Amino acid sequence: MTLSPGTSYQLRYGSEAADQPLAVWNEVLAHQLAHRSVRSYRSDPVSDETLTALIAAAQSAPTSGNLQLWSVVAVRDQARRTRLAELAGAQDFVGQAPLLLVWLADLARARQVTERIGQATSEGADFVEAALLGFVDVALAAQNAALAAESLGLGTVFIGAIRNRPLEVAAELDLPPNVFPVFGLTVGHPDRYDETTVKPRLPQQAVVHHEQYALEPQAAHVDAYEKLLNRYYAAAGLPPSWAHRVAARFGTVAGLNGREHLREALRLRGFQLR
Amino acid sequence: MTLSPGTSYQLRYGSEAADQPLAVWNEVLAHQLAHRSVRSYRSDPVSDETLTALIAAAQSAPTSGNLQLWSVVAVRDQARRTRLAELAGAQDFVGQAPLLLVWLADLARARQVTERIGQATSEGADFVEAALLGFVDVALAAQNAALAAESLGLGTVFIGAIRNRPLEVAAELDLPPNVFPVFGLTVGHPDRYDETTVKPRLPQQAVVHHEQYALEPQAAHVDAYEKLLNRYYAAAGLPPSWAHRVAARFGTVAGLNGREHLREALRLRGFQLR
Repeated sequence: MTLSPGTSYQLRYGSEAADQPLAVWNEVLAHQLAHRSVRSYRSDPVSDETLTALIAAAQSAPTSGNLQLWSVVAVRDQARRTRLAELAGAQDFVGQAPLLLVWLADLARARQVTERIGQATSEGADFVEAALLGFVDVALAAQNAALAAESLGLGTVFIGAIRNRPLEVAAELDLPPNVFPVFGLTVGHPDRYDETTVKPRLPQQAVVHHEQYALEPQAAHVDAYEKLLNRYYAAAGLPPSWAHRVAARFGTVAGLNGREHLREALRLRGFQLR
Repeated sequence: MTLSPGTSYQLRYGSEAADQPLAVWNEVLAHQLAHRSVRSYRSDPVSDETLTALIAAAQSAPTSGNLQLWSVVAVRDQARRTRLAELAGAQDFVGQAPLLLVWLADLARARQVTERIGQATSEGADFVEAALLGFVDVALAAQNAALAAESLGLGTVFIGAIRNRPLEVAAELDLPPNVFPVFGLTVGHPDRYDETTVKPRLPQQAVVHHEQYALEPQAAHVDAYEKLLNRYYAAAGLPPSWAHRVAARFGTVAGLNGREHLREALRLRGFQLR
């Protein structure tokens, strides 16, 4: 479902932005700006034909040096979805979505390829750079799949909480060493789509810099955003403050919900992060 | 420029796949599957209106917990583009594209927000998890921008080589601590678009797993891909072997082109990776 450029811009940047509609527009932008998180799904399955299209979209994304350092596990089995929902912080909707895609940074295939042609080791894969290539590759691919799903009328939401207990997720999915679960993506036909909302973002001026970066001017834009988002939270019946949500995540180690062990988990799974 | 589902699938997966056209298709998928890297640009500028649309697309991508841990520097100044092209391994086309977007993992804004509301520190931002959030957030955003650009008839290519000398890039862009250049994206009107090609990818069966991951069966798919890509390389006048390209990147530390120092560079820039 797409909207006009004016309405799309207003929903994304707040009512003050209503006088600045987008001058450049097409169907792709319309689907991108219409993005919203969907956490309520009907039980109808996602067809194999749709999954094939989503994967073709994902594989069509750029990948550094054509290395293709990612894989994905499509989970449809109800019992496995329920177990993964529990591992992802007991988020019930993860088990309700008919399809859960678990996106993987995959250095195992590249190591196998390297070692099969006679290289004794894949030492380069031990470095932070290799892990970063996998994280970036899998995110580029997954975003194409997510947008494709939305453009087909499906709902999605990314599940970062798959990293709360990554070793157990790896065991559930039988991941070999050098393959790591980066995030999940639930996919399904939206239930109560009318109740979903477009989340406003920071003003463009806060995130776009021209020629050089400037931190100082961002504070005023952040303050304006805090006010805008407080109106959004109030309308949704949620407690206020974007700033307090950011602080809750980063102000203490406890805010990481177990992900403070991510470095150790990566190393145990073969990502040495040298 | 988009093609039929049959042609798109064939270009992406090779001629053997011609009998398996996509059964699910729309304009978004058509633009996604048409992706190709463009490294030759006309000099006409990218308008401000187009940049606004690309940023709106980027900001409409999902972001973990709405934290928005990314920023972007739009570089149009010719001298700066030339210097950045030199830092990115003397890739001349980087300096020729009228617009270079440098995408940044940005923990500085979140730290500022956290500390402004009275938290003494942002200890959570010192962990690998925080860096990963930034890398993933910026990739999701950038992929939306890249697809939007392509859907508007522009050409793009991601520039991972911005990480070859990240400290010098940070100095050139005046990045504060806790802001790190993850990759560049050149944007411009394609020159000689007819000479660009869709790069075939691994068979879907190599990257998609059902319920659980399996490494063993991938070897046969990788072998088929090696043959497919050798035909692609031959047609392009390039030396053969995907496997040897993978091995060149990961078989030795030298293949990392300076990026073996990425961990140290991240730490120097405030990403502690605890």
